[in-house]
Amino acid sequence: MIEINVKTSYRQQMIDITGDLDRVVKNSGVEDGVVVIFNPHTTGAVTINEGADPAVREDILEILSKQYPVSSKYRHMEGNSDAHIKAAIIGSDRTVILKDRKLVLGTWQKVFFCEFDGPRTRKIYIKIIPG
Amino acid sequence: MIEINVKTSYRQQMIDITGDLDRVVKNSGVEDGVVVIFNPHTTGAVTINEGADPAVREDILEILSKQYPVSSKYRHMEGNSDAHIKAAIIGSDRTVILKDRKLVLGTWQKVFFCEFDGPRTRKIYIKIIPG
Amino acid sequence: MIEINVKTSYRQQMIDITGDLDRVVKNSGVEDGVVVIFNPHTTGAVTINEGADPAVREDILEILSKQYPVSSKYRHMEGNSDAHIKAAIIGSDRTVILKDRKLVLGTWQKVFFCEFDGPRTRKIYIKIIPG
Repeated sequence: MIEINVKTSYRQQMIDITGDLDRVVKNSGVEDGVVVIFNPHTTGAVTINEGADPAVREDILEILSKQYPVSSKYRHMEGNSDAHIKAAIIGSDRTVILKDRKLVLGTWQKVFFCEFDGPRTRKIYIKIIPG
Repeated sequence: MIEINVKTSYRQQMIDITGDLDRVVKNSGVEDGVVVIFNPHTTGAVTINEGADPAVREDILEILSKQYPVSSKYRHMEGNSDAHIKAAIIGSDRTVILKDRKLVLGTWQKVFFCEFDGPRTRKIYIKIIPG
Repeated sequence: MIEINVKTSYRQQMIDITGDLDRVVKNSGVEDGVVVIFNPHTTGAVTINEGADPAVREDILEILSKQYPVSSKYRHMEGNSDAHIKAAIIGSDRTVILKDRKLVLGTWQKVFFCEFDGPRTRKIYIKIIPG
C-alpha cells in the first residue's frame, strides 16, 4: 500500500491526483491489474471526471453546495454534515484498470480528491493488485 | 465469497457492518490485498462514513429523504422509486484495502449497509482478493 | 482488459450491459475473482439497479434530471455540466464478485451503462482479477 499526501486550500476543492497515481504505478513495476484509490476521510471523496476545463470542477462543487448547503439545522454539532453527505454521494473509493504499466483512463478523465471540509492536509491510500 | 446477514428495523437505516468485516478478514488468514463489499439489493447500498457520532447517519438519511421523498408520482408502481434512486446515488459496492490482516480505514470511518426500503433481512457479499 | 461498445439513442439512457458482461466472463474461463467495470467517459457512469421493471430506470433518470437540470448558468461552456455532475454522483466504476464462472448479482440486479449526454457510441472497459 502506498500513501500520498494532498494539501487543500479551500473548504471545497477538487484536486487532480492523476500525476501522483502515474508515478506510483510506474514505480511499482506492475504491468497489468487494477489500482484501488481509497480516501480515508469522512468529509472527502474520490471521483473521476473531466480535467481539461477547470470550469467543470467549479460547476460540480457549486451544484453540490446548492443541493447540500451548510446549515445549522443538522443534528451533528460540528457544522459539517453537508460535507459528510457529499462524501457519501461521491464515494470513498474508485478502482481503475492498469494496462501496460499505465492507468487506463478516458481521453478527458482525471482522478480527483474531493475536499468538502478543508483546508486540511489529507491522505490517499493506493493499492495495486496485479492480475 | 463470504455472505453476512443484516436485519434492518426501519424503512431507512445505516447499519455498521465493520465488526462483521473485521471477523471475515481475520478468519480468512489473508495478510494483504483488497476486500470487495457488495450489496445485492436494488434498494440498498454500501457506504463508508463517520461512525463516532450517530447524528451523522441521521443527518445523511434525513437529507436524502428530503431530496428524494416518497411520492406517488413515480412510474414504478411499487412505491419505492425513492429507494432505487438513493441506492443508485450511494452505490452498490465499495473496495477497501487490506494490510497486515486488517481493513485500512480512516480514524473515523466505519462501513455501513444502507437500507432504503426496510425493514427487511438483507445479505452482503464479501470477497477478499490477496495481493 | 476487454472492451465493449454501447450505442445510446437518447440524451439520457440506462443501457443494460449484463449480457455483455456474462459473455466476457464466460469467454475468460476464470472461475472466481472480481470483475471491474470501468466507464472512460466524463458524462457517463456505471450503476447496478433493478432490471425487471423499465419504469425504475425511467424514474431514476427523471429524478436526476429534475435535481440537476440542463442550465445556461453553468461556467463550463459546452452546456453539459448537468451530465458531468450526474456522472460524478453515480460513479465511473463498479466491482462485482465472480463465482463459479458467473457474476454474483442479486435477483433483481442488472448492470447499466448510464448515458447522460447522448446519443453517442460509448466504450466500457472490463477487467477480471482471478482470486
